[in-house]
Amino acid sequence: MKVLFVSGDPKPERWTTPLKTLLPDAEIFVWDADGPPVNADYAIVWQPSAALFEREKTLKAIFNLGAGVDSLMALPALPPALTVVRLEDAGMSVQMAEYILHQLVEASRGMETYRDQQRQGTWKIHRPIRRDEWPVGILGLGQIGQRVARTLADLDYPVYGWARSEHSLDGVTSYAGPGELGPFLSNTRVLVNTLPLTDTTRDLIDYQLLRQLRPGALVINVGRGESLVEEDLLQALDEGLVSRAVLDVFRKEPLPADHPFWQHPDIAVTPHISARTLREATVEQIAGKIRDHAGGRPISGVVDRSRGY
Amino acid sequence: MKVLFVSGDPKPERWTTPLKTLLPDAEIFVWDADGPPVNADYAIVWQPSAALFEREKTLKAIFNLGAGVDSLMALPALPPALTVVRLEDAGMSVQMAEYILHQLVEASRGMETYRDQQRQGTWKIHRPIRRDEWPVGILGLGQIGQRVARTLADLDYPVYGWARSEHSLDGVTSYAGPGELGPFLSNTRVLVNTLPLTDTTRDLIDYQLLRQLRPGALVINVGRGESLVEEDLLQALDEGLVSRAVLDVFRKEPLPADHPFWQHPDIAVTPHISARTLREATVEQIAGKIRDHAGGRPISGVVDRSRGY
Repeated sequence: MKVLFVSGDPKPERWTTPLKTLLPDAEIFVWDADGPPVNADYAIVWQPSAALFEREKTLKAIFNLGAGVDSLMALPALPPALTVVRLEDAGMSVQMAEYILHQLVEASRGMETYRDQQRQGTWKIHRPIRRDEWPVGILGLGQIGQRVARTLADLDYPVYGWARSEHSLDGVTSYAGPGELGPFLSNTRVLVNTLPLTDTTRDLIDYQLLRQLRPGALVINVGRGESLVEEDLLQALDEGLVSRAVLDVFRKEPLPADHPFWQHPDIAVTPHISARTLREATVEQIAGKIRDHAGGRPISGVVDRSRGY
Repeated sequence: MKVLFVSGDPKPERWTTPLKTLLPDAEIFVWDADGPPVNADYAIVWQPSAALFEREKTLKAIFNLGAGVDSLMALPALPPALTVVRLEDAGMSVQMAEYILHQLVEASRGMETYRDQQRQGTWKIHRPIRRDEWPVGILGLGQIGQRVARTLADLDYPVYGWARSEHSLDGVTSYAGPGELGPFLSNTRVLVNTLPLTDTTRDLIDYQLLRQLRPGALVINVGRGESLVEEDLLQALDEGLVSRAVLDVFRKEPLPADHPFWQHPDIAVTPHISARTLREATVEQIAGKIRDHAGGRPISGVVDRSRGY
């Protein structure tokens, strides 16, 4: 079996060395833009060039080194019948859950105010929050959305979820499909986006959506930048429909130096760090799936090309 | 039945109005320092003066408006046989769990660095954390310590607990008594103090204890200020034995204006806000216990005078 590793990592051996240990019978190759075909059975990819698909004609499946496959799906050279597998969790959902909780507490309990007070040497206690004043609505109930929902529900926040299809989760009131987006939004003060990017979710979070949130809304985007209409968010902040936004993903990354988000007083910008794939867990997951696929066993995380994730 | 409300709250009706609703058959009095005895059956107290116990000789029990009863226990006028009941939870443990998680993420994931980068317009991704590098050790496994332990264990942090007596909690490795403090500390990087103040826990967190923690230690005190030897913490920070401290409680509160903690670059100071008692939940809990006690039914939260909490 031949496995081809295709990523821009300047130290590919950090991946291929553990891969060799986990797949002792496989030949592991590192992508060389100027090299000959290796006739790989499997490729492990991160932002591959179209040349991969022109050169390697024997691929049985490709494994994406991330949960989001939107940019991969957008490659015209991607063979329509090729099995594409996205990364599942690999340590990401727990990181997102704690990132979101951190940012929620930061806003709801005014932690920046307490840091300012410390700088000024001021001892002043502010009103405690009532958790029922901070209902959370989670867009997307995949592995990540479910983990976020569970963490916040365990901490006694009211939690609502919205997804393409029906979900049943303890402690979470779920809504499904476009027809139930309105009721979901009218219950939500803290909007958390964990949706994958598809034709349906592109530009979903626009002015019309934001104005349906409860007063004092907090918008947290950890899904994809293209799901948020950036100028609409700025308008909603200007008009007070949204009080604060926490953005970890952007339409263009890195966020351009002259972008208004950087210096906006009510926007927190982080550089796509809410969840990082952990190399060890990632390599283990993909090696396991390669073994299963080669052995004819079913694997999870196969992209449904019709829905786009 | 007569219930006497004794607190410095300038608006006692915020408490007595809901109390009357919950205890319709009771006569509710507000403490008047210059008034006659009311021959109360129960008192609900926050930092009462010794005069309470000299004047009211028919008290069957007193209910403290907080979980910590150390200052009440220290009153010489407190009759030795009087039943003292501390507040249990009343919305506090969940607040403490999220406060501690917020402060842990703040440190472990370098959130201050990302805020600084935003001010400078810098997009720079730092190394993700490995959760096994941030083992948490919780001093005290009462209702608050248990909730904190569960929240952090659910977020995949290694969690250790230390208490006076044995505890068995899912996902938590427990240690008991002075003899097991050493092994507990040697596993702990993030030390969280939730202990009540007693003769045993006063000055417990001293230089000798701090030096047994794992490298890069983070110390979070949400228990009582007197459990921490402040100059020992400063020394441990100076020597790099501790990297950072998050302090919500202090030996003297409000923290004096000239105290070195205020401007220390590696100390976060908050004004005793990690958990606030919520009035509604507090009144409900105490009214329920008064009903039960008056009806001869057992109640929880009765202070064991020999152990001091």
